[in-house]
Amino acid sequence: MSFKITILGSSSALPSFKKFPSAHVINIHERFFLVDCGEGTQIRIRQFKIKTSKINHIFITHLHGDHFFGIFGLISSFNLLGRKNDLHIYSPGDLEKMVYTVLKKNDLNFKLFFHRLSTDKKETVYESKSIKISCFPLNHRIETYGYLFEEKKKEKNIRKEAIQKYNLTIKDIIKIKTGDDLILEDGKTLSNKNLTLPEQKTRSYAYCSDTAFEPKIIPYIKGVNLLYHEATFTKDLKETAQITKHSTASDAAKIASKAKAEKLIIGHFSSRYKDETIILSEAKTIFTDTQIAEDGVTFTIPIQHIKE
Amino acid sequence: MSFKITILGSSSALPSFKKFPSAHVINIHERFFLVDCGEGTQIRIRQFKIKTSKINHIFITHLHGDHFFGIFGLISSFNLLGRKNDLHIYSPGDLEKMVYTVLKKNDLNFKLFFHRLSTDKKETVYESKSIKISCFPLNHRIETYGYLFEEKKKEKNIRKEAIQKYNLTIKDIIKIKTGDDLILEDGKTLSNKNLTLPEQKTRSYAYCSDTAFEPKIIPYIKGVNLLYHEATFTKDLKETAQITKHSTASDAAKIASKAKAEKLIIGHFSSRYKDETIILSEAKTIFTDTQIAEDGVTFTIPIQHIKE
Repeated sequence: MSFKITILGSSSALPSFKKFPSAHVINIHERFFLVDCGEGTQIRIRQFKIKTSKINHIFITHLHGDHFFGIFGLISSFNLLGRKNDLHIYSPGDLEKMVYTVLKKNDLNFKLFFHRLSTDKKETVYESKSIKISCFPLNHRIETYGYLFEEKKKEKNIRKEAIQKYNLTIKDIIKIKTGDDLILEDGKTLSNKNLTLPEQKTRSYAYCSDTAFEPKIIPYIKGVNLLYHEATFTKDLKETAQITKHSTASDAAKIASKAKAEKLIIGHFSSRYKDETIILSEAKTIFTDTQIAEDGVTFTIPIQHIKE
Repeated sequence: MSFKITILGSSSALPSFKKFPSAHVINIHERFFLVDCGEGTQIRIRQFKIKTSKINHIFITHLHGDHFFGIFGLISSFNLLGRKNDLHIYSPGDLEKMVYTVLKKNDLNFKLFFHRLSTDKKETVYESKSIKISCFPLNHRIETYGYLFEEKKKEKNIRKEAIQKYNLTIKDIIKIKTGDDLILEDGKTLSNKNLTLPEQKTRSYAYCSDTAFEPKIIPYIKGVNLLYHEATFTKDLKETAQITKHSTASDAAKIASKAKAEKLIIGHFSSRYKDETIILSEAKTIFTDTQIAEDGVTFTIPIQHIKE
């Protein structure tokens, strides 16, 4: 069961050939979710061989150009490639108006659904049997949301040999799957642990860009496996960060630390930094397990089992 | 005096990492003109080290996304980089509405001027002392214009030694510059040829994309030094070309041949062609001096003198 994040673009407002503007693709159980869609996202998608037909949901954080100018080309190319599936787009602001001013609705061979976000707390925006995606407000110059991608807790898997050995009925199985022990005819109790496979921990990924240092988001992303947090500046430009409502590397690392994230990815660096190791070092002094978001790199969240 | 064309993007509707969507930059005498502005143009501009501050005029052929979706990011980045100079955008259709729906007019620190094209013949759209740029209608599914970039005929340059030798007055010089011979006091005539430097031919570049085979454009681009003409298909897909109002490689070569162009560049190939030499070969059988437009390649039109 895959849980992988591929960085399609990692630049801040001024992209380069090496760093395209913001876009990540999240593969959860072979369903692909796109978060942000900067200019050139469709080029990166093709370059990194992402299966476009599997992208049915696009989550835009905010309507600054470096986070959504790729949406027009992506939709056009989906259409050209014969897409028929519905496409859902989640965003604050009136992205629908922008899209339908630039593209002709009647030219599209598939349905677009715009979900306009407007909330001051964490809210579920997408839910399937096994996946939940929520948005939560960030603190930027315009209305901006972060996203949390989570696996949902699965039912317990029963050990195959137990079914035969104890001649389990459907009723028994349902009860065991919910965590019950099994009481045998002779009155003996078999513990649930011996009847079921080790449980997998649910995995999660949070995407926080663009935002000033904002401790309010900590409860929303508590214990996340992988946190992407913007780090536009180093701490010597703390004031610039505050004025522009961006974060420093230290800010990002503090959020990761306070949220008890397992791992941190930082990106969206100001184009003034030629040597990015300075930004990385700053974050690492506060949160050791930090890496830089680089276009084309895939981060995998491995399956972990709950220790009993 | 430079006259150079750099291909920023050469793909048709579906771009790739190797081929970005349509955009050429034309450097005439160190003034830079952009024609078309597909998605990612700003990335290519930065990659190929084009001086953005020198781009004050952008010419859009038509409002299909692969020819203008880069305009939003380009304008945003110009703004971010502190641009103050006016920017002129020439285009059919209501590009102004699109730009101001996607970008906030008040956020811009420089003035944008939209020049909406609407003509059924060749028309001058820009003119300076030494450069003239015209648009002319192409034949595509929507309103589309080609562009012709021309040097204007310069005054003749007088040989420095002649000024001293014959003690030329300002009046003499003005007359000689217009082509007159000089009549000396003793009644002898000095031919203009001996008083002036060899004249330079005016150079020109035509950009024709997207269009079906359209002989009407031939008089507009007659004798052009360098012709870019789209060649989306090979001749076996002539019908597809006709239906979609695109050209085959043969069509492009025929136009180059009939217009007596010196050199032809073809591009905008359908992404179905993995081996582009097939398209090139087809064009070359009709027009020998043909080359493929490849992202990053610069074509220089050399200075030529008029033979006397």
